Amino acid sequence: MADQISDVSVSLCSSSKYVTPFRLNYKQDGVEKTWDYIKGHDSIAILLYNKDRDVFPVVKQFRPAVYAAKIKAFTDGQKVDTDKHKGEEGMTLELCAGLMDKDKDVTEMAQAEVLEETGYKVPLENLKKITSFRNGVGVRGTLQTQFYAEVTDQMKVGSGGGLVDEGEQIEVVELSGRDALKFIMDETITKPVWMMFAFTWFFFMKDKE
Amino acid sequence: MADQISDVSVSLCSSSKYVTPFRLNYKQDGVEKTWDYIKGHDSIAILLYNKDRDVFPVVKQFRPAVYAAKIKAFTDGQKVDTDKHKGEEGMTLELCAGLMDKDKDVTEMAQAEVLEETGYKVPLENLKKITSFRNGVGVRGTLQTQFYAEVTDQMKVGSGGGLVDEGEQIEVVELSGRDALKFIMDETITKPVWMMFAFTWFFFMKDKE
Repeated sequence: MADQISDVSVSLCSSSKYVTPFRLNYKQDGVEKTWDYIKGHDSIAILLYNKDRDVFPVVKQFRPAVYAAKIKAFTDGQKVDTDKHKGEEGMTLELCAGLMDKDKDVTEMAQAEVLEETGYKVPLENLKKITSFRNGVGVRGTLQTQFYAEVTDQMKVGSGGGLVDEGEQIEVVELSGRDALKFIMDETITKPVWMMFAFTWFFFMKDKE
Repeated sequence: MADQISDVSVSLCSSSKYVTPFRLNYKQDGVEKTWDYIKGHDSIAILLYNKDRDVFPVVKQFRPAVYAAKIKAFTDGQKVDTDKHKGEEGMTLELCAGLMDKDKDVTEMAQAEVLEETGYKVPLENLKKITSFRNGVGVRGTLQTQFYAEVTDQMKVGSGGGLVDEGEQIEVVELSGRDALKFIMDETITKPVWMMFAFTWFFFMKDKE
């Protein structure tokens, strides 16, 4: 079970290839300023809808950054009591998503990500771009491009689950069409706002375009 | 003008009080793993609607992290040609928003942020919570709580603009009610997804609750 989290401790990271802090030195209206930010990758996210069974295949996984934020794991050397703070606190529901860390076409990257994480082999022509936006504005201004794809049971050729070699441990969860609307505003489910936006697009904007 | 950006350079940041990288060491199903993340603050954002004139007061500002992401300012010592990459590239439209960096009531923080940034003095009872969610899940799992507040011209007691002492330089822009719906999907306007979500809530979900 992906939420079986134990032996948790925190360390200050003197250098990290994943979160590299930079400083922008600049003048605004002639006044010297600085701003610290981190290097990030642009990303893709795909809202999948299985029309055969009126379900949205989404992914469930343990997110260390969410777990850390919830339990305030911001002290060097901190040991976390995992009886008190179970792995469940760090589990999120998200759309299938990935980083644009290869120099490949964005739609092909989306197709590959869907196969890796959910096991659906989606034809390229089924992947419709919804829109793009900035995921963050404070410390990381990366762009996310969102896609929508209708899938069928026939397209399910694998079990998904992510790249085990890269430490990914992803569970595919099917959200029923009826529940998805309630899901948007359900604060008891830990989820990113970009997923909520994709569902509002599906329910309220998709057929008006 | 806030978009008059010059003398831009990039430096690697050996230590930053704004983006502190931590590492979570843990076992998942008994397998040792690590994940790097940064310490962040939870935040608030407030969707304001001026019903006297059917406009949404929003804020426009230069966002160094967005500018850096767009121009790929990720090299130590890099000098940026600001004739080629004008400050305009880093300007965003956002809802009035702030960090939960004080130990105060979330609604009172929202009230103070609205006054600081937009000059509206909103009664506490006008601030209705919309929902809350995770802003990010990869490297920073911070929570954003969103509010909605109807305001009137009478409540406008100042010019807003943010805290100049803290380097904030914020312009209040009024988005017309008619344009706001188109705005959601307009990719030419640089904006965070949480703002897009707030507008979809206003147009499609607000009166159904």
